[in-house]
Amino acid sequence: MSRDLRGLLIPSAVAVIGASERAGSVGGEILRNLVRHGYQGTLYPVNPKYSQLEGLRCYRDVSELPETDMAVIAVPRGLVHGVVEQCGMCGIRNLVIITAGFKEAGSEGAAQERALESLAKRHHLNIVGPNCMGIINSAPGVSMNASFSRWFPTPGGVAFISQSGSLGETLLELFEQVQLGVSLFVNLGNRVGLTENDFLEYLSSSDEVRVIFLYLESFADPTVFRTWVEVVSQAKPVVVLKAGRTEAGAAAVASHTGSLASSDAVVDALLRQSGAVRVSTVDEALTALRVLGKQPPPRGARAVILTNAGGAGILAADACERAGLDVIPLDPDTQAELRAFLPAEASVGNPVDMIATAGADDYEQALQTVLPHTDLAIVIFRPPLVLDESSKAVADAILRMAAATPRVPIVACPMSWSDEAVLFSSHLSTRGIPSFITPESAVDAASFLVEAARRVPRPHPRQAITQRDDLAEMIGRASREHRCGLTFEEGATILGAYGIDVCRHSYVVDLEQARGFVARSQYPVVLKLDAPELFHRFEHGAVVPGIGEDRSLAAGFGALSSLAEREEFSGARILIQEMLKGRELILGMKRDPVFGPVLMFGIGGTLVEVLKDVAFGIAPITPDQAMRMIRSIRAFPLLEAFRGQAAVDLDRLADTLVRIGMLSLELPGIAEIEVNPIIADADRAAAVDILIRIDTCGTQGEKGESP
Amino acid sequence: MSRDLRGLLIPSAVAVIGASERAGSVGGEILRNLVRHGYQGTLYPVNPKYSQLEGLRCYRDVSELPETDMAVIAVPRGLVHGVVEQCGMCGIRNLVIITAGFKEAGSEGAAQERALESLAKRHHLNIVGPNCMGIINSAPGVSMNASFSRWFPTPGGVAFISQSGSLGETLLELFEQVQLGVSLFVNLGNRVGLTENDFLEYLSSSDEVRVIFLYLESFADPTVFRTWVEVVSQAKPVVVLKAGRTEAGAAAVASHTGSLASSDAVVDALLRQSGAVRVSTVDEALTALRVLGKQPPPRGARAVILTNAGGAGILAADACERAGLDVIPLDPDTQAELRAFLPAEASVGNPVDMIATAGADDYEQALQTVLPHTDLAIVIFRPPLVLDESSKAVADAILRMAAATPRVPIVACPMSWSDEAVLFSSHLSTRGIPSFITPESAVDAASFLVEAARRVPRPHPRQAITQRDDLAEMIGRASREHRCGLTFEEGATILGAYGIDVCRHSYVVDLEQARGFVARSQYPVVLKLDAPELFHRFEHGAVVPGIGEDRSLAAGFGALSSLAEREEFSGARILIQEMLKGRELILGMKRDPVFGPVLMFGIGGTLVEVLKDVAFGIAPITPDQAMRMIRSIRAFPLLEAFRGQAAVDLDRLADTLVRIGMLSLELPGIAEIEVNPIIADADRAAAVDILIRIDTCGTQGEKGESP
Repeated sequence: MSRDLRGLLIPSAVAVIGASERAGSVGGEILRNLVRHGYQGTLYPVNPKYSQLEGLRCYRDVSELPETDMAVIAVPRGLVHGVVEQCGMCGIRNLVIITAGFKEAGSEGAAQERALESLAKRHHLNIVGPNCMGIINSAPGVSMNASFSRWFPTPGGVAFISQSGSLGETLLELFEQVQLGVSLFVNLGNRVGLTENDFLEYLSSSDEVRVIFLYLESFADPTVFRTWVEVVSQAKPVVVLKAGRTEAGAAAVASHTGSLASSDAVVDALLRQSGAVRVSTVDEALTALRVLGKQPPPRGARAVILTNAGGAGILAADACERAGLDVIPLDPDTQAELRAFLPAEASVGNPVDMIATAGADDYEQALQTVLPHTDLAIVIFRPPLVLDESSKAVADAILRMAAATPRVPIVACPMSWSDEAVLFSSHLSTRGIPSFITPESAVDAASFLVEAARRVPRPHPRQAITQRDDLAEMIGRASREHRCGLTFEEGATILGAYGIDVCRHSYVVDLEQARGFVARSQYPVVLKLDAPELFHRFEHGAVVPGIGEDRSLAAGFGALSSLAEREEFSGARILIQEMLKGRELILGMKRDPVFGPVLMFGIGGTLVEVLKDVAFGIAPITPDQAMRMIRSIRAFPLLEAFRGQAAVDLDRLADTLVRIGMLSLELPGIAEIEVNPIIADADRAAAVDILIRIDTCGTQGEKGESP
Repeated sequence: MSRDLRGLLIPSAVAVIGASERAGSVGGEILRNLVRHGYQGTLYPVNPKYSQLEGLRCYRDVSELPETDMAVIAVPRGLVHGVVEQCGMCGIRNLVIITAGFKEAGSEGAAQERALESLAKRHHLNIVGPNCMGIINSAPGVSMNASFSRWFPTPGGVAFISQSGSLGETLLELFEQVQLGVSLFVNLGNRVGLTENDFLEYLSSSDEVRVIFLYLESFADPTVFRTWVEVVSQAKPVVVLKAGRTEAGAAAVASHTGSLASSDAVVDALLRQSGAVRVSTVDEALTALRVLGKQPPPRGARAVILTNAGGAGILAADACERAGLDVIPLDPDTQAELRAFLPAEASVGNPVDMIATAGADDYEQALQTVLPHTDLAIVIFRPPLVLDESSKAVADAILRMAAATPRVPIVACPMSWSDEAVLFSSHLSTRGIPSFITPESAVDAASFLVEAARRVPRPHPRQAITQRDDLAEMIGRASREHRCGLTFEEGATILGAYGIDVCRHSYVVDLEQARGFVARSQYPVVLKLDAPELFHRFEHGAVVPGIGEDRSLAAGFGALSSLAEREEFSGARILIQEMLKGRELILGMKRDPVFGPVLMFGIGGTLVEVLKDVAFGIAPITPDQAMRMIRSIRAFPLLEAFRGQAAVDLDRLADTLVRIGMLSLELPGIAEIEVNPIIADADRAAAVDILIRIDTCGTQGEKGESP
C-alpha cells in the first residue's frame, strides 16, 4: 500500500501535543525547535495546563484543534494511546510519537505498542515512532524541526533516515561540520507504523533528494527494502550504514550449509544485490555522502592521479589498489603529450607527478590530456610554498576541464587546511567537486562513485512453470506423510522441471536392473541408498562410488542391500547413477524467516568444510549477481582452466543458481536444498546428490542418525 | 658504526650556506625560519653577496666561520661539492644538504651524488640529504627550524623521520591540526649519508621521544632497520607508514615459490617481525600517534565499551570485531554490579549502554566495576541534551578511574564538536587520554595500542654449527663444478646438520639394493631420479610414488633406469625413500638482494599453486614469529585435527622454519631452498623432497627443461 507522506513531511499545520514551558520537557523543546528554526506553517501547542506557549495560543485538547496535518506527540506513555485515538477520530492522520517506554522497555511496553499498531491500522494513520527523536524538513519552504535535535541541518540533497535517534543527531552534527546539506531527517524509532521502506517509496519520486542515507540496526522487511532500493538506486544512490554485525547469532542461517553463514554475510548480499552502497563506518558515510549525487557516475574503475606532491601520489596509488581502482600507466602517446609541457623532473606514468612548480596551466593542460583516457580523476593540489598565482586559479582550471568533460568525475585533495587550500576547496565545492584532506579519503570517495555507478538490473519477475502445482502437491504429500525431506527422485523431478541438469540415475531392485542401467549408460557408476530422511549418505556408508566393472557392481549392490535391511534404513531404495568427472561444487538454499531464500555456493570438500569459503545470495538473483557470487569465493581460480582441466562453464553455473532461486520462491514448502555435489565442467553442471528438506520437521530425526 | 648526532640535532651554532634575501630563495627561507622560530643557538649566514642578512653578520666563505656544529647547504648544485669539501676541511661535521638535482635527476646527478658519498666518508661527515627539506628540533631549548617547512610543530613526544619532504610538511600540518606534539622532524631526502637507521639508533637512547614515526618509500637497509626497531620498540612504539605497495614488481621475490610473493608481503613480514606498528593511511598514522606513548600497553585484546548512546556502542562493537578486539560479554557478577546502580533501560552485557541520562557518577562507578575485568576501555560520552553537570565532571570521573587503574588504557569518544564535547576532550587530553570523534577511530586507536603492546622478542644470535665449514665447502665445490643446485643427498646433509628431519632414503644402483632398503624400512616406498639440476622431478615423470609390493618396485626401478639413460638425465641416480603419510606442506627460502633470506610457508597442492595461500617471514625468525606465520595462512584450519587426522605438531613445524632461517643465514652460498613437500603429522615434520639452488646459475638451464 502506497502512503501519501506529504502531510507528514510538508505539513501546513502542526500540533505539538504535550508542549510545555517546563525546563527539560521534550515537548517544550520540540515546540521551541519549531519556532526557533522558523517553521513556515501554523503551530498549535496542545496542553491543558497552558493558555499560551511561545507566544502561541495553546489548545486544551486535540478536539479543539483547527485543521491539522500532523501532530507531534510528547505526552507521558500512559496518555499516548488516548491521544492517538483522539487524533484518529479528529482526522489527524500523520503522527510523530516521541514518547518512549514501549517495546524497548519490556513486555508491558510491547503490549502497549501492539495496541498502537491496531489503532494505526483502524484509523489509517501514518505513525513515526514511538520512542523517536522526531523528524526534520529543512527545505526553505518548510523549515520544520519537529524533533528535539539540537542540530537543524543546512538544506541540501541528502535525505537521512535513521533508526537511532542519538546517532542520528550525532551524524547531523558531523554532516554540518563537513558542510553536507540535509533536507530531510527522520528518526524511525520503534517503527510501529512507518518504516524505512515507506520513506524509500516516498523518496523514489522526489526530485530534490539526490542521495538517500539510511542508518539501520535491522530491516523492517528486507524483501520490500530490496524492491524499493532496486527502484530508487536506478535514479539516486542509496547509502546504508548497517550496524550490528556482532548480532551474528540472531539471524544466522543455520544447519549444515547455513552454519557457514553469518547474518552479516546475508545483509551484505541483500545490500549488494539491491544496488545499495554499503558503508561500514561513520567516516565512510561522510566520505560517500560528500561525493555521491555531486559527481557523475564513472563508466569504469580506471583512475588517473594528478599531483604536485610525489609522496601523496604514491599514497593515493596505494589506496587505489586497496579499493580496487585501476591505476593503469597512461599510454605512450598520452605520456608524450604530458612530457611536452611538463618539466623534465615530472613523472608522466600514473600517478602524474607534475612536481611542486605546477600551476593552473599545468593542471588545466594535464586534465585536458588525461580525462579522455580515464574513468575518473583524483587531483591532488597542495598549495606550494611560493605561489605565483592564487590557488583559486588552479581551482578554476579544474572546473573548466570538469565542464569540458562532464562525464568523468573528479575528486580533489588539497592536503592542507591553509587559507590557500581552503580557498581552493571551497571554490571547487561551489561547482560540486568535493575535496578531501588525505589522499586516501579522496580515493575512498572515488571508489564509492564506482560502487554507486554499478547499476543493478532488477531481477525478472518470476514466472511460474507449468508443472508448479504438481510439484507443490508432491511436496504437500510428503508433508502430509510427516516426512522431513524428499527422495532423490522427487528432488530430481523438481530440479529437472526448473531446467537444472541432473546426472543419469535409476532406482534398481536387483542386480539385473543395475546391469541394465550400465548397459544403457556405461561404467563408471555409483550406487547409493536413497530415503527421504537420509541426509548424510556418505557418513552412513550408503554410497559406493567409482564402480568400474561387473564384480565391483555386484559387491556394491550386495553391500547396500544388506545395509538397507537394517532398521534405520527401512524404506530405503538402491539408486544407480552415472559417475561424472569435473569440479565438485555445492549449491544450497536455506529459507530464512526474515530474508527469504538464502542461496549458497562453494567448492566441495575441505574448502567449504574447513575453510568456510562460501558466497551467499538472496533469491531472486540475476545471472550477473549469481556470477558475482561465484567469482567472490577465494577459491574461484579453481574454476578456471587449471592443471589440464578446462574452465568450468560459469554461465551455466550462474544460470543454475538463478534457477535454484526461482524454484525456492515458487515452492515455499521447501525449507532447504543442498545439491552436494553438483559436478561442473566445460559442458555440464549436473546435480549428483540432491537433499531437499521440507517444513514438516526440523533437522532432528534423520535416518541413520545416532540417538 | 654508531654516530653522534647531537651536533646535528642540538647544535650550538648553525651556518646557513646559500642564505639570501632574494624572494623565493630556499636558503633565505631557511635562515628566516631559523630566526622566526627562535633558534636558541648562534646563526651564521654565508653568502659572498651580502654583509648582513636578517640583522646577522653574513660570512663570505665557510673558511671565515667561527666554530660551527652544523651547516645547512642551499647553494646551486654545481657548488655543493666544493662547499661540502670546505666544510669537511674546516671541521664542520654535520651537514644538511637542501640542494636537489642529484640521484633523482638522472645519471649526471647520480655521479655527483656518489662523489658526495666519498667526501662524506673521507671527512667522516654526518650528511642529511641531499634533495631534502631540512630538519627541525622544536624542543624549547633548541627551537631550530633548519628547513623550509612552513610548519614548525608544537614540541611533543613524537620524532618524525620522513623520506619525503612535501608529504613530511603536509603531515606536520595535520599533526598540528590534531594537536600532536612533534619535537624532531628529519626529512631524509636522498640519504647519501644518514638514513632512518642512524636516527633510530640515536633515538633509542632518547628519553624525551616517546613515539617514533617513519614515513618511508624504501628501506636504506632492511636488516639494520630490523635490528634497531627490535631494540627501540622494546621501549617505545615505532610507527611506520610504508608507501609504494604498487612497486610490487621491483623487489618481488621471484621463481617458483617466490612468484607468490609481492614485495609488500615481505615488507609486512619485516615490519611485523621487527615489532613496528604498520599504518596504511595518513588517517591511521594520526590515530596511532595520538594514542601511542600516551596510554599504557594493554595486557591483551579484551575491550569493554561504555556508552551513553546505543547506536555508537554498536558501531564501536562492529569496529572492534573488524580490528580483532574481543568484546566479550561481562561475567554475571560484573553485570549484576552494574545493574545495581544503572537504570533498568541500560544494557550491561558489552557494550555497556548506560543510556542518555548517565552522568559523572555513573561513568565513575561503571569504570570502577569493569576496568579490573578488561584489557582496555573505550568510553563514549556524547554530552546529552539536558546536562545537569558539566562534561568536565564526567572527564574528571574518567581521569580518577584511569589513575586508580593505571595499567588499563582508556580511549574516549565524544562524537561531537560541541563546546561541552570539546571541554570533555581537552580536559581528558591534559592527562593523556585521547579523544576521537567517531567510535570507529577510537577503536582503531585501541587496536594500535594492542598492536604496539605485542612485544617482539629479539631472535637469538645465530650460533654456527660445528659442521658449518664442511657444508660451506660442499656448496663451494658444487659451485666450482658450475652446478645450479645440490643433490638430494647434499640437501639432506645440510638439513640434517641443522636438526631438520628428513625421510629415510638411499641411493640404489640395482633392484637388489632397492629390495634391501625395503627390507630395512618397509613398504610403501617411493622411487625418484635425482640430479642436482632436476628441479621439477614430478613433471618429468621422474617420481614413482606409492610402491606397495615387489612387482611395482621392479617396474618402477625399470622405468626410472630407462629414463636415466636419456641424455637430459645424464648423471642422475635412483633414490629410494620411505613413503610418509600426513599433511603435505611447503617450506621455502629465497635470498632477496635487499631483505636477505625470505622464508615461505604454505600447504601443498592447489592451495599454494592456485590460491597463493602462503605466508612470508624474514630470517632470523623466532619460534613465535614462525608460529604466527604458520597461523596466518587462510588454510590454517587444515593443520588442526580434521577428518580423523590428528593435529600437526605446530611447534615442530615452527622449529623447522626457525632452522631453515638459521641455515640460510649461515650458508650464504645457498640462493634458494624448496622443501616440497615436507610431510607433517602429530609426531614428525620430515622433508621428502629437497631442492637447493646455489648462486652459480639462474633459474635457467635446468635438466629436463624444454628449450
